[in-house]
This record gives sequence, structure tokens and C-alpha cells, in this order.
Amino acid sequence: MRRALLNTTRGTALSVGLGERSRQLNSCAALVYRRHGHDLDTVRMEEMSLPALGRHSVRLKMLASPINPADVNMLKGTYPILPMFPAVGGNEGVGEVVEVGSEVTSLRPGDWAIPWDTGFGTWRTEAVCEAGDLLLVPRDMSLLGAATIGVNPCTAYRMLHDFVPLKPGATVIQNGANSAVGQAVIQIAAALGVKTINVIRDRPHRRELEKELMSMGADVVVTEEEMQGLRLENVIQDLQRPVLGLNCVGGLSGGLVLSSLRDGGTMVTYGGMAKKPLHIPAKALIFRNITLHGFWMTQWKRNNSQDMSRLVTMVTTVCGLMKAGHLRPPHCAQVPFHQYRRALQATTQSHQRKHVLIM
Amino acid sequence: MRRALLNTTRGTALSVGLGERSRQLNSCAALVYRRHGHDLDTVRMEEMSLPALGRHSVRLKMLASPINPADVNMLKGTYPILPMFPAVGGNEGVGEVVEVGSEVTSLRPGDWAIPWDTGFGTWRTEAVCEAGDLLLVPRDMSLLGAATIGVNPCTAYRMLHDFVPLKPGATVIQNGANSAVGQAVIQIAAALGVKTINVIRDRPHRRELEKELMSMGADVVVTEEEMQGLRLENVIQDLQRPVLGLNCVGGLSGGLVLSSLRDGGTMVTYGGMAKKPLHIPAKALIFRNITLHGFWMTQWKRNNSQDMSRLVTMVTTVCGLMKAGHLRPPHCAQVPFHQYRRALQATTQSHQRKHVLIM
Repeated sequence: MRRALLNTTRGTALSVGLGERSRQLNSCAALVYRRHGHDLDTVRMEEMSLPALGRHSVRLKMLASPINPADVNMLKGTYPILPMFPAVGGNEGVGEVVEVGSEVTSLRPGDWAIPWDTGFGTWRTEAVCEAGDLLLVPRDMSLLGAATIGVNPCTAYRMLHDFVPLKPGATVIQNGANSAVGQAVIQIAAALGVKTINVIRDRPHRRELEKELMSMGADVVVTEEEMQGLRLENVIQDLQRPVLGLNCVGGLSGGLVLSSLRDGGTMVTYGGMAKKPLHIPAKALIFRNITLHGFWMTQWKRNNSQDMSRLVTMVTTVCGLMKAGHLRPPHCAQVPFHQYRRALQATTQSHQRKHVLIM
Repeated sequence: MRRALLNTTRGTALSVGLGERSRQLNSCAALVYRRHGHDLDTVRMEEMSLPALGRHSVRLKMLASPINPADVNMLKGTYPILPMFPAVGGNEGVGEVVEVGSEVTSLRPGDWAIPWDTGFGTWRTEAVCEAGDLLLVPRDMSLLGAATIGVNPCTAYRMLHDFVPLKPGATVIQNGANSAVGQAVIQIAAALGVKTINVIRDRPHRRELEKELMSMGADVVVTEEEMQGLRLENVIQDLQRPVLGLNCVGGLSGGLVLSSLRDGGTMVTYGGMAKKPLHIPAKALIFRNITLHGFWMTQWKRNNSQDMSRLVTMVTTVCGLMKAGHLRPPHCAQVPFHQYRRALQATTQSHQRKHVLIM
């Protein structure tokens, strides 16, 4: 397991407990933690000084930043990349450029930009960073869309493009279909003419959820329980047998995805929500020629950070899908920055929508 | 699961219970079964008529044919490819060409040849088949080597060449290292300058086996139990962390292979001797970027049968390794053809060496 240490502060923590006190011009408010802990009480709002603007750097006023499960795992110390302390939480978000160094040509004041790498520390009011840490996004897209585009929709985009050539009419099966990635998969696949079979957990308002996913472009929505009781052809109906499976659950649910694939198919795992390993029978690998891969957006971005063109193309394309109406921003609860504690607590409860801090 | 039906008889069964009766010139003795059964009593020696020699066909006098686990699974009806009845058992072996059709240029009387596809029905004294069903092997290699080269050493060869580029000094880890494939992996890897870590089951004469595998070129031999007790660096010693894992066991043993791989590594599964599924944690796929493939020699051969050049190159290369002394024929028990029942029974017991019928 890689465990990289990140410097997410991009400044110096000045004092604990900012409260209502006015900030210095060269400082910001940030959600800082100095140790790992499972109760999330480790996170405090602090005033933090910002470094001076260098020739290649950018001053970014953060506008919105989501709380993602990976952020919480970082707080707890269970993520494979961990920050140096003191650390600022948050890895995703959108800001407005307010000042650029003399050598910066990629961004101008007024632009919207998102950090591309994990470990930026996005839960803050301002940041001074290298221009190369940021990617431009269009200002005429939704704020929530821009704040949440860099991880989940990009994960969906990559998994639909990098593992199996998907022609229109091909079928993809996924579990956790109601997750932020799952919803993006449905919509991006629909835009590609690719069919989706969407496995969800059984829940009280299952039919409403099915309707919502169908409205995004889902072809089939089925619960894990239904899938176990049905013959595969009754699930697949008139679709082709899936050539690609996307798994963010693991355990039994991952097995349902695996067993539904056609011979020679590929399953990509990008999460393990059930916290149970996949059980893979040898026969599936040998006689059905199934291939298993994993996908981690952070690693993909780092592998492609030397020449940023693939990163830029991806973000531009996904932003374009959103602007064209093919990809909705996720349903988010917007929470004022100073109410961060409420938002953090909500994120640890299941069946909660994504919470986005508005700075 | 693919379940193809094969016609393995290449002739017509004439009578049951050949015994000592002399055979007609255009007939052969064959080990025939007419139903699947787990007790192997379904197999009987029968006289079988042979078809007339066509312009493109070859008359082959079988010399030696092994009993492989896949053959027994076919008898039992548990293999994904099953024969039409009546069926002749056996899928591998070497024969001498005794007569060729007028249009055959690839083979001449006196040549040694092996069938390339599964389902030939090699447990017989003679066969008349298409010249395209056979591959030439050199006459100056060992009989047992020629009889057993088409499946196990070729499986080892492919798995070392098709999944990960292996430079000299790279490390491969495998379980079931004492299997016929495992022994071939050790020797072919050694010839490539590739290091091997070889996981075996604990057994009474463990040190003798270690010595034997080391004499073939193994770098490390370790039991599953030792591997669980040791720190990985003590297993790997001064070798590079494995970039390729080969798994024919599954269950816990497959997990040991998987967890020892370096980030970005690949595990290829070609057997499931423990009859237990692999347990794959999501983290191994996502954060360690491990890829899982399966390999099935039968399917590879069929995928490459249109243009036979890759098949010919493979068999020629592996025969060359054997002739050059890099690859020993496996330790086999040679059994006269008419004592087939003893050989079949022995194959169903564990820790038995491979049995080869000598015609």
C-alpha cells in the first residue's frame, strides 16, 4: 500500500478557533486537523497565513468544496494517501482566480479553476498555489457541478473509456448505481449510446430511485435481492450481455456483477463499500476469461501529470457533457462554510446526499 | 461457461472388450466411454474402425499419451468442453506418422507429431486425422517430453510471455510450484534469467522437493505455512518484488501470491486445485493496481488456429528448450496401454506423479 505524505496546508496555521474574528488580508480560514481520529472532532476552523504570490503562482478564492468519503477516510487516517500535519481537509472544489503571478498565462483573474491532484486542502476560503496545480473550468457551468466534477464524473468517464472499447448498443453493468460515480456512469453511457444495467441495494423508496435513475438514462434498475432471484436473461432482457462491469461494493454484489458479464468481459473495481472482499471462482478467470482491474482516479491523474493534455481533455470533455445537459450535477446539500461540523457529521451517516461547503 | 461438444472418436466403435483379440488392419484399440461417471469405470478398451485415408489426412501411430487432470474432468463431465459419445479419452500425446494423403506436405512418414487441439482422443493405438490437426515435433527429443509438451510446458511458456514483459532479474511468484506447469515455469523462467519464488504445500519430504525444484532453477521455495509466518521481505530476500503471480490453487494460497505482488503487478490464474475461490480485497485492485487474468491453453490455441504460425513458433521454441536441456521432461510413471485402468486410478490420488500410457 502506498502511503504518501502530502503538504496540504499551503500556508501556516496561525491560531486555533477563528470564530468571528476578522482575518488578515494575507490569511484565510481553513478546516485544519492535527491528528487522525474517527470522531471528526479533530477538525477545527483556523486562521492560516498564505504565502506571498510568486511569479508562477495563483491566488484562488474558494467558492465551493464537497465532502467526499475519501476526505473522511483521510481524516480518519485510513486512506492510502495521508497529509502531513497540520493539514487542511478536502480534496475537491472550485475557486475563482483573484490574482496571478507575472509568469502565469494559463489562468486569469475571474477564471474558475479546480485543483487536479489529491491533497490540495480545499476546505478553506483562499489558497495560494502553483498555476500548474489548477485546471480551468468554464464559468458558465453550475457551481455545484464545477465543485464536484474532478473526481466522480471523471472516474466514470475514465472507466467507460479506458478498459473496454464500448460501441453504441454495448451493455455495462454496475453496482452502487446510485452513488455519485454510478449516476455519472448512467449519464455518460447514455450519451455514448451504451446501455446500463444498474444494481442498487433494496431500500424503502426503491421505485422512486429507479424512476430517478431511469430519467438519467438507465436501461435497467435492479436490486441485489431481485438479481439473486431472477434468471440472468430476465435481468438483461433485450440488451447485450455486459462486456464491462463496474464494482464499488464488493462482496456478494461484486459477484453478481462478475457473473453477469459475458465471456471475455472485464470488471473494474473502484470502491469497496460493503467492506467485504470479492470472491472470484477460478473458472470465471480461466474458462470465462474474465479480467479484473482496479481504478483509482488519483493515481491516474498522477500518472498523466507530466504532460497535462490528457487531464485537460478529460476535464474539458466532462464539463462539456455537463454544459450540454448530458450530465446533471449531483443532488447536493449546500452548507455554509462555518457550519462545516454539521456537514461532516452528515457525511458519516448512510443514505445522505453529498454535502458541499459554500465559502 | 462454454460447453462445446467434441467428436473425439475419429472412427467407429466396433465392439466392447477388445481383450487379446487381434485387430483389423483398418482399426485401432481405443479407451472409449459412453457416459460420464466419477468412478472411471466408464472407460473401456474397444476396437474402433478407422476412416479411410483422405488426400489431406494422416495416419498416426500413437506412441505415448499422458493422463492429465483435465482428461479425468472430461470423463467425469465437469470440464467445460465435453465430448460426444462414444468418446475416446485423452487430449495430449505423441504419435509417429505412418501414412499421409497425397496432398499432405507438412508431415512425412516417420515424423513425430502431436495434436494441437483439445478433444483429439489420444488414448488409442492409431488415428486417422487431418494433417492440420497435428504439429510436427523433433524425433530427437525424449518420448515422454514429446508426449507431454503440448499443454503444461506451453501453458508455462505463454504465461511467462503474454501478460507482463519480464526482463532478466524480474521475479515471478507461483503456487502449486511442484505441478507440471509449475516445474516448467521454474525452468523456462531460469532460461530467461527471471527469478522464481515457488510456493508449495507442506509435505513430509519438503526438503527433498525444495532441493529438486532448486536444481531446476528455482530461487526460493517456501511452503504456504512458512509464507504466512514470515515477513514478506524474508521470503523475497534480495529478489525484486514479484511483478507476475501464477495461481493454480486459489483460496488462501492465491491470496498469498496476490499479496506478495508489487504495486501494478498481475496475477494469472490457470487452475483452482483448492476448489476455493480467490478472496480479493478492493484495496488490492484500487490502490495497488493489481490486475487479474485467467489463462486456458485450449482457448489460446483455438484463438490462434486460423494462422498456425504462433502455435508452431510456441511448440518449436518449447521443444528447443527441452532439446537444449533447459527443460526436463516431467517425472512420469510409464504404464503399458493395456494397464490403463491402474493408471487412471492412480491419477485420481493426490501426490501421484503423472502417468503416461505407452502404446
